Amino acid sequence: MRILGIDPGLNVTGLGLVEQNGRSISCVEYDQIVLARNLSLSVRLKTIHENLAGIIIRTRPDAVAIEDIFYGKNVQSLIKQGHARGVIILAAVQAGLAVSEYSPLEIKKAVACYGRAEKQQVQQMVRAILRLDEPPPPDAADALAVAICHLHCGKKDCL
Amino acid sequence: MRILGIDPGLNVTGLGLVEQNGRSISCVEYDQIVLARNLSLSVRLKTIHENLAGIIIRTRPDAVAIEDIFYGKNVQSLIKQGHARGVIILAAVQAGLAVSEYSPLEIKKAVACYGRAEKQQVQQMVRAILRLDEPPPPDAADALAVAICHLHCGKKDCL
Repeated sequence: MRILGIDPGLNVTGLGLVEQNGRSISCVEYDQIVLARNLSLSVRLKTIHENLAGIIIRTRPDAVAIEDIFYGKNVQSLIKQGHARGVIILAAVQAGLAVSEYSPLEIKKAVACYGRAEKQQVQQMVRAILRLDEPPPPDAADALAVAICHLHCGKKDCL
Repeated sequence: MRILGIDPGLNVTGLGLVEQNGRSISCVEYDQIVLARNLSLSVRLKTIHENLAGIIIRTRPDAVAIEDIFYGKNVQSLIKQGHARGVIILAAVQAGLAVSEYSPLEIKKAVACYGRAEKQQVQQMVRAILRLDEPPPPDAADALAVAICHLHCGKKDCL
């Protein structure tokens, strides 16, 4: 079973594809969609949607898991993240994939056994769980973590 | 010049197509995408995107004007509205259209000369400006109002 984990953002969207065979979990690939600061909102949304649609066609995941919004941020940045999540969920549903969401607390608990783990701890735990040579960059690590979380929790409620 | 005004929402999205010939503004059509309460978020986003993409192909507007988010609401509903705005802006940019946004205050000032006008006043003013037989339903009236606002203000900054 292949899970595409996504950490959505208008500046950087983390992507992590994880595969489970029996009790073994491995990393297929990870990436980050990084967008230049001078791009407009509409171009950002189009680029995120196009990239994600292409990645889904190429890698054929069975389901998508997405990080829920962390409510500690300011309202404007939460709304902007909502825009990015909108086009990400759209790309998944257009490909016929179910989308589950997990809170940052659930994700950190799943990979680091501790809901308030720092970004660096998540990177190190993802590296250890997936037996990677080096820790992935932060947003890709978060995306891999949400995919691992989905395999651990097996949440059935979809967005 | 044809402007498609949009009042985005996950439950009801208002649409209003307005045409300017010289100094005369007329209504081409208006509609509301109304979604049943039991639909999932992903189905809502897909339905809004599909409907809007179809309407853009059929009606060929020159530009899209969208209502900005009203920050008085609670954070969760603002984020959800962000999702809807995301797929709406995407549909417009995928069709090569520029998207401008206007605050509720700007829109109400443009049609009712008063930034704190009630919904009913907006409906009546839109009816009068566009010489309609009856006031459009509230969300379609808001969409027509944002299209009228775009023609009045001619904002050049696009999203």
